[in-house]
Amino acid sequence: MKTIKDSVHDHIRIDGVARDLLDTPAVQRLRRIRQLGTVSLVYPSANHTRFEHSLGVYHLACEALADLGVDGRQAEHVHAAALLHDVGHGPFSHNLEALTYRRTGRYHDDVHGLLVDGDVGDVLRDHDLDPGRVADLVAGKGRFGQLVSGELDVDRMDYLVRDAHHTGVPYGTIDHGRLVRELAFVDDELVLAEGNVQAAESLLVARALMNPTVYSHSVARISKAMLRRAAERLLDAPKTSVDADTLQRMDDHDLIATLRSSEATSEFSRRLDQRALYKRAVWAEIDDVPGGIIEAEHEAVREFEREIAADADVDPECVILDVPGRPSMTESTTRVMVNGDVRRLGQQSPLVEALRAAQYSQWRLGVYSPPELRDRIGRTAVDVLGLDIEGTLVSEVRDGLDTTLDQFVD
Amino acid sequence: MKTIKDSVHDHIRIDGVARDLLDTPAVQRLRRIRQLGTVSLVYPSANHTRFEHSLGVYHLACEALADLGVDGRQAEHVHAAALLHDVGHGPFSHNLEALTYRRTGRYHDDVHGLLVDGDVGDVLRDHDLDPGRVADLVAGKGRFGQLVSGELDVDRMDYLVRDAHHTGVPYGTIDHGRLVRELAFVDDELVLAEGNVQAAESLLVARALMNPTVYSHSVARISKAMLRRAAERLLDAPKTSVDADTLQRMDDHDLIATLRSSEATSEFSRRLDQRALYKRAVWAEIDDVPGGIIEAEHEAVREFEREIAADADVDPECVILDVPGRPSMTESTTRVMVNGDVRRLGQQSPLVEALRAAQYSQWRLGVYSPPELRDRIGRTAVDVLGLDIEGTLVSEVRDGLDTTLDQFVD
Amino acid sequence: MKTIKDSVHDHIRIDGVARDLLDTPAVQRLRRIRQLGTVSLVYPSANHTRFEHSLGVYHLACEALADLGVDGRQAEHVHAAALLHDVGHGPFSHNLEALTYRRTGRYHDDVHGLLVDGDVGDVLRDHDLDPGRVADLVAGKGRFGQLVSGELDVDRMDYLVRDAHHTGVPYGTIDHGRLVRELAFVDDELVLAEGNVQAAESLLVARALMNPTVYSHSVARISKAMLRRAAERLLDAPKTSVDADTLQRMDDHDLIATLRSSEATSEFSRRLDQRALYKRAVWAEIDDVPGGIIEAEHEAVREFEREIAADADVDPECVILDVPGRPSMTESTTRVMVNGDVRRLGQQSPLVEALRAAQYSQWRLGVYSPPELRDRIGRTAVDVLGLDIEGTLVSEVRDGLDTTLDQFVD
Amino acid sequence: MKTIKDSVHDHIRIDGVARDLLDTPAVQRLRRIRQLGTVSLVYPSANHTRFEHSLGVYHLACEALADLGVDGRQAEHVHAAALLHDVGHGPFSHNLEALTYRRTGRYHDDVHGLLVDGDVGDVLRDHDLDPGRVADLVAGKGRFGQLVSGELDVDRMDYLVRDAHHTGVPYGTIDHGRLVRELAFVDDELVLAEGNVQAAESLLVARALMNPTVYSHSVARISKAMLRRAAERLLDAPKTSVDADTLQRMDDHDLIATLRSSEATSEFSRRLDQRALYKRAVWAEIDDVPGGIIEAEHEAVREFEREIAADADVDPECVILDVPGRPSMTESTTRVMVNGDVRRLGQQSPLVEALRAAQYSQWRLGVYSPPELRDRIGRTAVDVLGLDIEGTLVSEVRDGLDTTLDQFVD
Repeated sequence: MKTIKDSVHDHIRIDGVARDLLDTPAVQRLRRIRQLGTVSLVYPSANHTRFEHSLGVYHLACEALADLGVDGRQAEHVHAAALLHDVGHGPFSHNLEALTYRRTGRYHDDVHGLLVDGDVGDVLRDHDLDPGRVADLVAGKGRFGQLVSGELDVDRMDYLVRDAHHTGVPYGTIDHGRLVRELAFVDDELVLAEGNVQAAESLLVARALMNPTVYSHSVARISKAMLRRAAERLLDAPKTSVDADTLQRMDDHDLIATLRSSEATSEFSRRLDQRALYKRAVWAEIDDVPGGIIEAEHEAVREFEREIAADADVDPECVILDVPGRPSMTESTTRVMVNGDVRRLGQQSPLVEALRAAQYSQWRLGVYSPPELRDRIGRTAVDVLGLDIEGTLVSEVRDGLDTTLDQFVD
Repeated sequence: MKTIKDSVHDHIRIDGVARDLLDTPAVQRLRRIRQLGTVSLVYPSANHTRFEHSLGVYHLACEALADLGVDGRQAEHVHAAALLHDVGHGPFSHNLEALTYRRTGRYHDDVHGLLVDGDVGDVLRDHDLDPGRVADLVAGKGRFGQLVSGELDVDRMDYLVRDAHHTGVPYGTIDHGRLVRELAFVDDELVLAEGNVQAAESLLVARALMNPTVYSHSVARISKAMLRRAAERLLDAPKTSVDADTLQRMDDHDLIATLRSSEATSEFSRRLDQRALYKRAVWAEIDDVPGGIIEAEHEAVREFEREIAADADVDPECVILDVPGRPSMTESTTRVMVNGDVRRLGQQSPLVEALRAAQYSQWRLGVYSPPELRDRIGRTAVDVLGLDIEGTLVSEVRDGLDTTLDQFVD
Repeated sequence: MKTIKDSVHDHIRIDGVARDLLDTPAVQRLRRIRQLGTVSLVYPSANHTRFEHSLGVYHLACEALADLGVDGRQAEHVHAAALLHDVGHGPFSHNLEALTYRRTGRYHDDVHGLLVDGDVGDVLRDHDLDPGRVADLVAGKGRFGQLVSGELDVDRMDYLVRDAHHTGVPYGTIDHGRLVRELAFVDDELVLAEGNVQAAESLLVARALMNPTVYSHSVARISKAMLRRAAERLLDAPKTSVDADTLQRMDDHDLIATLRSSEATSEFSRRLDQRALYKRAVWAEIDDVPGGIIEAEHEAVREFEREIAADADVDPECVILDVPGRPSMTESTTRVMVNGDVRRLGQQSPLVEALRAAQYSQWRLGVYSPPELRDRIGRTAVDVLGLDIEGTLVSEVRDGLDTTLDQFVD
Repeated sequence: MKTIKDSVHDHIRIDGVARDLLDTPAVQRLRRIRQLGTVSLVYPSANHTRFEHSLGVYHLACEALADLGVDGRQAEHVHAAALLHDVGHGPFSHNLEALTYRRTGRYHDDVHGLLVDGDVGDVLRDHDLDPGRVADLVAGKGRFGQLVSGELDVDRMDYLVRDAHHTGVPYGTIDHGRLVRELAFVDDELVLAEGNVQAAESLLVARALMNPTVYSHSVARISKAMLRRAAERLLDAPKTSVDADTLQRMDDHDLIATLRSSEATSEFSRRLDQRALYKRAVWAEIDDVPGGIIEAEHEAVREFEREIAADADVDPECVILDVPGRPSMTESTTRVMVNGDVRRLGQQSPLVEALRAAQYSQWRLGVYSPPELRDRIGRTAVDVLGLDIEGTLVSEVRDGLDTTLDQFVD
């Protein structure tokens, strides 16, 4: 048995199949993928990686299974899935996932290919485990898939606490020890045992507060959008040797080095390295945005960008339109026991609806540009997109608008 | 200047009037008043006192004032108020406040008498401060009274973090450093500066989650109700030498010793010492309780108790009826800047309404009794109080009902 | 199984005999005995109790035994001993132990009487455990006694971390998770496994730094000496109803209330309550103290006090002579594996000798008195005790002398 | 003013020259240099960077100066030096410093060139500061140079706490708040004020325990030696375009990408990426190593390696000889006030000598090789180096030998 020291869970013991999986290149690669991508440009301490997170998820899965009385091959399948659940991530984690999905059709949790072939598959089979079944667990399928990927998964429990620890933002500090111990199965559904409505709510609230403060902080969104644009240029450059599959298999070092050395992307790369970021030219609330735009496909978004650039008479690379999807709140289906019945949290807790409403009020469409073009591009974008002008032009309202205090907000 | 080491804020520097106030008996007495009263019967580490909390509030007040650019005598008045804001507490802090209020007409923040006379008044006057003005600040009056006692006061910021630290329940872990730095005055109203809607919500949520988990944990409520009953017996005992004013001036040691030695209270005292607590015979939701009962005055409640005891044919001391007030949420009036306007949080954030609704769903009327009489008293109480029977008798539903996992819940 | 939330170890699970022992008056009483006695007069957050410490020791014992592969009745005996190891403590923990030992012949770990009779004995026997064997374990006897009370016991591992957490002084923050996991038995001796010399040293160093900063802080020593003097007066008062056995069975509340109400002790009690402490009139290094004094018996020390008082013409109660024992360092016999051999740490690590020397240089004889008599009593004491005058009179040298920065040092 | 959230110091406020320096490429580059180089291969959470450390050092310098009453241009020079003190670091911080020093003659704190020219120099001059004077402070020169680089510098105070936070090893958790507040100048020498002998010792002990556990952990040493070898091959490869100056200016991404793509280094790179590390073939104590070897110059060491490889008949790249310098302990000259005199800690505290002795007993010469050649190379190396055979061949003694428990030790 190995013991690994972790800054969040202290000592993590690694045994069985996990011990052997640890030495595979696929798992070691996660050391070089930052958990939060460009968020470290906002919170400088947030340099933690998918590797330590994967160890943490493995650790919590072991605790949960021990409490549930699950062991043997059943448990080993889940242990493997917990440790491997993020091997499908590309560089900068979620930052480029939309891009690679468009080109490859695969999200990061589609890991069948990665688990069946190669070293990982060999290790799994050596331990008498079925790679396909492990991949299904990673995809959230089956009874125990809920523990790896679902509303009450240990993935979320680890990342909230870990992101809080490394950013310094306390909102994610949930009581994971309690949550893990209170899991139970009722009719094959993973639920929180009686008396845990507040514990379920605390998980929901932690996400709801971490989201605008950390994950969707405006500077994180801007830098992510710039990285995404750079990666897209890389894939589309003439004579490029990088396709989406190659990109997906890179680690952070590969991607950064490639962006630096490619002519099509070196300027974005320089800006990211020097934190010479674009700024918000437009920052529009959901009610000010015409209906079709939120649902626009990627190509339509690109077309808007080109149109804004043309009308404003600037280089198309100076305009980035960032349209988040419509807010969703999957936790509403979290199941909790109340008075002996399984209830959905959305039924039980008025918080679910309120947090959904809060998400709507926090939603923003952004148009980003080099600082010196902010005004011109902002005005043009309002016209082109047909935004309700009130309150959407950042240059016209107070600069502090919806920013969080810390972290270099411009 | 003195420096004091605090487990929450690390080093606290004490200077000026605060340094001299520290040595007064009124402030030193706070070392012997537990911050959370009987909560330590649920969370064994929660033995922190009003003294360390008062130091913490003083510390945060100093930081806030420095950031607001306030100094001189203005600041010294606030420093004094912060350090003195809890000198009016009786033993076990809030646990007996309703009782002493009924008899003395004073809540703990009515400190005029304590500040004007005696050592404290002398120290204040020696520093050229006005005791009456300090007392007004403690009562939340005036511009800076909002900082000492109001929706955005530093009192709350300290106790949430401190109670989280000492109970081990993380929900109270707010970002007090940020909150303190983001305070501002707009037209004499204390507000959170632009971009702090989530920060304001986090404060609200922290209270909303700490409340059922810590402050109103069922075992904390039961033990508090037993203590309150014992104290009432003490005051009402024939030949007692203890009146409400004397009680109010006791510290925890005095009260415990007195309860132990008085015949009228020694049994309650034994039960509290040995944690041989009453248990819930009834635990009824707000919709199951006839309207009048929630608003019943203390004497009416006592009359219900006597009636239940008579009908169940048990000693009246075996029945405790615990009816919390109707939920309120003062934070709804917290003021935050949004797009350059001062808005009330209740206007801005859907969370406020949701948390209010959650409070309603968490509200419970309790009837407590010795374990062996639970069933008999429970049934009788349902009849006497006219409760909607469904789900109110603890003995008939799952025992885990609304309990939190940890902490000796019976 | 119960789960208890602890501010140090988070969730502690209580099962088997421990669960039933928890409800005994002897264990519940520990809630009312402060872990560090008067240290809270220096570090205001240090209000933790023997109860939470006992839970922590039980928790670490469970972890150690599970790692060592020990279970069944063997383990249950140790679990019981861990939870019960401090039931023999009197009020204020170690503060009065020398006094009660002189009168009763029992130290706090002599618990045979407490464990065999009464509720505790009944619970042990109900679980088919032998009270005598549990008491032996508490006294450090036998193979597993080393785990409860010895150089590598879990008692020390808990209190160092817990005292650091509650005082805010980080020196005690050892890696208890590692220490517990690295324990092993070699020929019935408890040792630290290969590769843990630094871990063993860290335990030693933690104690060596916590000692002068916390446990023997000058203000803690002064207040402890005052408490001890008051307790002795209480026992010796004419018409007192308190003997040493009664004293030993009190909790903190009892003792404080008794000291307040007894004429012989009310002045000391007032001083402790108001933190109107004596101050150092003399503070002498070991080399400045004539040999015989360090080894003087209690009566000889009292005689010195009376002589100083007479010569200085002050009330005898104004002079307290505080002579610590000669430094010892039991950890020197800690056993660690090095290159396959069991070695004593004192053999292996040069730190042991150095820390012993440091203890000698930190040793101080103190004479304490009311502030206004400090000068007169200091000079007289130097004469009476035959101290080498250089550097021993506090009033003549810099006041900061050997104090730690924080904490009200006078 | 900007506020940045830091996981160690919470909120760090950046003002004046520091605010403008933050945006220079030289400072932003530090985001991409890991603080502890390859230590993350042992402690997976240790991914923190020189950037956040530099912010922390700046923060502590601000606090220390404020306490010392220093402001104005004097303070601004020190603020700049604190923020810039690490801009001279090459990729992987200290890991390659010996190599680049041999080729460039510059250590990382020789920053005159970097500060005078370019953006940094411009910013400094814009703020009316002298770049040369800032560079002198970084080099530890002058009165305030002691605060930036000396026995009591804020650099050390930050990195100990930060490394503890990110590795999870608690030994570095010093009381930096106290140390910073207790600094004073006596005759232009930086000292710790009266009563801080233990505080000074705690700093010493923290380093002494972090060193073997973290900084010189055997796996950290092996991976660092492999990286150093790879970098040397890179510089010496025929047709290479990388010289030592170029290498020094790279960030971690550059170096990793270059090592991957160069034929001469791709195998080392693969091994580091996959954590397929060399293992210890020899691990010899200082007394077993012939005198001359410890002082051997780099070329002599390389010659030994070649000789071992030749005798063992293996590829020269399979042998790495790692000879640490003779232990030193600069803290022995730390100055503390004792009884009104300035004393050197080495004079005052027996711990200094003991820790020096401990360093000697921890010193190890290592010979590293691919696992399958371990035995053959180990035996040959013993012969070639003339080691006293006893206990130096890792393959012949217990594998646990001197390892720390955690962290993948092989």
